[in-house]
Amino acid sequence: MAATAEQINATIDGYVAAFTAGDRAAYLALFTADATVEDPVGSDVAVGADGIAAFWDGVRAMTPDVQLQRTGDARVAAGEAAWPVRAIATLGDMKLAVDIIDVMAFDDEGRISSLRAFWDPANMAPYEG
Amino acid sequence: MAATAEQINATIDGYVAAFTAGDRAAYLALFTADATVEDPVGSDVAVGADGIAAFWDGVRAMTPDVQLQRTGDARVAAGEAAWPVRAIATLGDMKLAVDIIDVMAFDDEGRISSLRAFWDPANMAPYEG
Repeated sequence: MAATAEQINATIDGYVAAFTAGDRAAYLALFTADATVEDPVGSDVAVGADGIAAFWDGVRAMTPDVQLQRTGDARVAAGEAAWPVRAIATLGDMKLAVDIIDVMAFDDEGRISSLRAFWDPANMAPYEG
Repeated sequence: MAATAEQINATIDGYVAAFTAGDRAAYLALFTADATVEDPVGSDVAVGADGIAAFWDGVRAMTPDVQLQRTGDARVAAGEAAWPVRAIATLGDMKLAVDIIDVMAFDDEGRISSLRAFWDPANMAPYEG
């Protein structure tokens, strides 16, 4: 049984909350043991718990304060989903925003088995919010 | 060299126009010779020119009149893109709409090498537009 839309949306909400709160343990608990993370698409793929933990640590070292906001419904199909999200990073006195579409696959229990994040650092723009 | 955002957006515009116009030849010309189409995600994957032509013929037999409308910017990364689109199908006297996120990979010249369409037929809803 593929994960349901309800399971998938709950995981996405958990992902947004963990990322925004900077909650490393909650973030890592969202993934399967052999999950892959390619964020942004085209960058090195992080593999498994250790790889994803290292990815998290690298992101948070550069941008300790990142808020995620869902900007539309997830499109769910056959245990996968694509969903739009805005990331707002605080860097010193400046806020920068970028619009992302995340593509995720899920296991039968709604854990993330694959994450590919479609965004371009060149599209980051000053944010007044 | 990966396809540029300009090339990718031009192909997406061509895809929207060809689908809306019901222009089979223009649609098929957008793909590489060995492209794959999975629409919606979870359905059988159409492969290559013959497979994609058969997919087109099947879709148009069921829904001869489908309008596509881009509903947001494409998120482009490393020669791939995710982009939101609304499909509005006319069936007899009724219009039905569904919101989709298409994920596409492109060759160096901006032709589509892979298309995965994230949507759920259960999310189709009557459309007043």
